[in-house]
Amino acid sequence: MIHAATVPPLTRMLMALHAILAKADAHCIARKIDPAALLTARLFPDMFPLTRQVQLTCDFSSRAAARLSASEVPNFPDTETTFDELAARIIRARDHVNSVDPAAFDGAERRVVTIKMRGQDVQMTGLDYLTIFALPQVYFHATTAYNILRHNGVEVGKADYMGLTGR
Amino acid sequence: MIHAATVPPLTRMLMALHAILAKADAHCIARKIDPAALLTARLFPDMFPLTRQVQLTCDFSSRAAARLSASEVPNFPDTETTFDELAARIIRARDHVNSVDPAAFDGAERRVVTIKMRGQDVQMTGLDYLTIFALPQVYFHATTAYNILRHNGVEVGKADYMGLTGR
Repeated sequence: MIHAATVPPLTRMLMALHAILAKADAHCIARKIDPAALLTARLFPDMFPLTRQVQLTCDFSSRAAARLSASEVPNFPDTETTFDELAARIIRARDHVNSVDPAAFDGAERRVVTIKMRGQDVQMTGLDYLTIFALPQVYFHATTAYNILRHNGVEVGKADYMGLTGR
Repeated sequence: MIHAATVPPLTRMLMALHAILAKADAHCIARKIDPAALLTARLFPDMFPLTRQVQLTCDFSSRAAARLSASEVPNFPDTETTFDELAARIIRARDHVNSVDPAAFDGAERRVVTIKMRGQDVQMTGLDYLTIFALPQVYFHATTAYNILRHNGVEVGKADYMGLTGR
């Protein structure tokens, strides 16, 4: 079951974010807004900007698929500076998440996963890793990306976040 | 496994939000800020204010536990106007989530759950309901509550959201 509780929701969230960014890109074009105004926007000076929120959504998704399948954690460099590049990054993350053999997730609920948390190695079961670490992180960064865009007047709605539109 | 993928993460997120609101309350007292300034704050005029984000985090949590255990969906009136009242609301939601007999979740992965989505009845398996509906909703509203507070200068951090502090 852990594959079914990991890959479909991550795929759905990534593609929801992909559709949300497409709307933000179109918003910039329609209103002659410099895309950098949104891509570098933050909700507070010491929070990450939109670009980084998207990168982190991708990273936490890819790492979840890798760690739960005991496969290599992919390394995607954080070089994106445009909506098109962020869209491509999301597709790479989705493709990675979907490329992992479902059978490799078997037994991941009870397998020990080691992560760095506040600089220290923390061990937890795969189930705890997914449910109290990876998913809250993915949804945090996807929601914060959404909130940055909403705060800047981009017309996206809850249905976009839930993946009910734009597929 | 569906009980383990539902109750512990919901409990953890609710208690993280409880701790975050306690810091917001303390922030208001220390700086002589009217708590209503935060409780009614929104990231955009047509988004819900903090109070409603907290109520929705509670509601989606309680409904998840109820629907997955085929037990009664509790009805909590939305009457909170203070941090203390929101804290009590969170505790009620947590107590409800934890009061459900774990055995009642058995087989919920495959049981059909019916929810209203955009005014229409939508049926899905319990697993889909949890992973692509309930959890994304809970984390959306908890993150948005956090983002409203961050945007208003309350000193909370990711560790608070992840439930690593203030327990």
